[in-house]
Amino acid sequence: MRAVVVSSVGADAGVADFPEPPASDSVARVVAAPLNPVDRVIAAGTMAFRRLVPPAVAGLEGVARTPDGELRYFFAPPAPYGSFAEFVPLAGAETTPVPDGLDEVRAAALGVPGVAAWLALTRSGHLAAGESVLVLGATGAVGTIAVQAARALGAGIVVGTARSAEGLDRVERLGGTPASVADPAAFDTVLGTVAPNGFDVIVDLLWGTPLAVAATHLARDARVVQVGNSAGPTATINAPAFRNKGAILVGHSNFLASTEERLSAFAQLAGLAATGELEVAADPIGFDDFDKAWHGEGPAKPVLIP
Amino acid sequence: MRAVVVSSVGADAGVADFPEPPASDSVARVVAAPLNPVDRVIAAGTMAFRRLVPPAVAGLEGVARTPDGELRYFFAPPAPYGSFAEFVPLAGAETTPVPDGLDEVRAAALGVPGVAAWLALTRSGHLAAGESVLVLGATGAVGTIAVQAARALGAGIVVGTARSAEGLDRVERLGGTPASVADPAAFDTVLGTVAPNGFDVIVDLLWGTPLAVAATHLARDARVVQVGNSAGPTATINAPAFRNKGAILVGHSNFLASTEERLSAFAQLAGLAATGELEVAADPIGFDDFDKAWHGEGPAKPVLIP
Repeated sequence: MRAVVVSSVGADAGVADFPEPPASDSVARVVAAPLNPVDRVIAAGTMAFRRLVPPAVAGLEGVARTPDGELRYFFAPPAPYGSFAEFVPLAGAETTPVPDGLDEVRAAALGVPGVAAWLALTRSGHLAAGESVLVLGATGAVGTIAVQAARALGAGIVVGTARSAEGLDRVERLGGTPASVADPAAFDTVLGTVAPNGFDVIVDLLWGTPLAVAATHLARDARVVQVGNSAGPTATINAPAFRNKGAILVGHSNFLASTEERLSAFAQLAGLAATGELEVAADPIGFDDFDKAWHGEGPAKPVLIP
Repeated sequence: MRAVVVSSVGADAGVADFPEPPASDSVARVVAAPLNPVDRVIAAGTMAFRRLVPPAVAGLEGVARTPDGELRYFFAPPAPYGSFAEFVPLAGAETTPVPDGLDEVRAAALGVPGVAAWLALTRSGHLAAGESVLVLGATGAVGTIAVQAARALGAGIVVGTARSAEGLDRVERLGGTPASVADPAAFDTVLGTVAPNGFDVIVDLLWGTPLAVAATHLARDARVVQVGNSAGPTATINAPAFRNKGAILVGHSNFLASTEERLSAFAQLAGLAATGELEVAADPIGFDDFDKAWHGEGPAKPVLIP
């Protein structure tokens, strides 16, 4: 079958032929498989939670159609198989049905970033209705869903950060209050004005300077959920800011959650997307465009249609 | 009565006369009152959890003898009274009996630092028996008690840091494994050797570089309890170190706990001290030596005997 294959340790992933999975393993046809940043980390062999033994098919998740016609979301199919292929064994993978009203491309695009946003707010952030939420980095796949999910979960104030005017506009359209992180002093002022009592939950996809500024706007018993660090691996954190509020910083990874937590998060998000309450970006591509997308030259949210 | 009085905002605390509390407020004679760093913060008017309105008596806690002869530990007597005085009103203060076998000076010295160490391990750190503990800054009042309390709570490996040879010896004598933070690279190596699976609970009194190094030695689901920052107010923290372990950084202050939690912590520590299972340092001083002690020129752990 045609697939995106990592042929040896450290080698680049590339489109190649790969043996089909044995028919006994509940084989299904992959209809949509999103390219997430984590796929590159796994292929590089540096993801502690999913060690790749080449040769193997890349791709952590996707949507497949079973022989009886059902659309199922799947996550972490058994080695050496992956989602970037024509077929995938569902035996041993985490799977749940895609609800009616949600197409396979958007369902696939929801996956990892949606589950990260949902579990960051609920499992790690313990968001309660009416609480204030700050999403640091609200323009990427996780951040745009986090703004909408916070709304759906009944948050009070929801602030989302961006750098560009387009990004700020998008935060507002998704129901958030936009705040620019371009100028740290101005960002500090905006946070103090919008949330004078501080934020109860911060979903942090940036780290670095934006988090250092945001950490001075914590509500009592605040939860800072560390999901990503696109602003840099280190941040200079002020200890009294956390201590005086009894605040918590919690590291989040979808891999630390249970299968039930991941699939429940997906099911709730998919339900919201199916009824139009949640907007999901997705850019379908074919095998021929995959190499460019893998190297970051493709659209914002590539979803492979094998 | 004779007392240590803060006469106006920003003024230094000094020994002076102060009106005795009204007899209706369960007045008791103060027999020992420890000088803690928090007393200076409160006197300076910068402690969010206890705002001082001068003129007022300084001193957050102590041990008093009631008219019927009972020794009681007390915390946070009502304004404008404090523990650095001949008499204190116990009505409105948090109080609990001092157990037999524990003298008033050591009981008083236990107070704030003991409660901080105990609650950092239990309330904030959720220490379970057999887990590994790292005390960053194990030579101060909180740190020395934290090493012993971790042992009493059934921890497995307990590592305590110090800078001097005397400090390292003391950690060992108290039942901990000593580690020097003087050289960050050597500290890193020692932590990796002593706890190859990382630490479950870190009680952090230092912050700064020692915490940045220790944060690369976290066990899965580790809890880093931020109690003090004597190495500096800021630290450069690596985000993936927390994320990949699902680790938590939690800011701790005794003031965030409930009255019941504080008094229960004191009672358990006092019980251990009374039976000789916990060593508590205390250096009794009189009013005449108080000024020097207030300005940091007194003994390590001054306890005023009014």
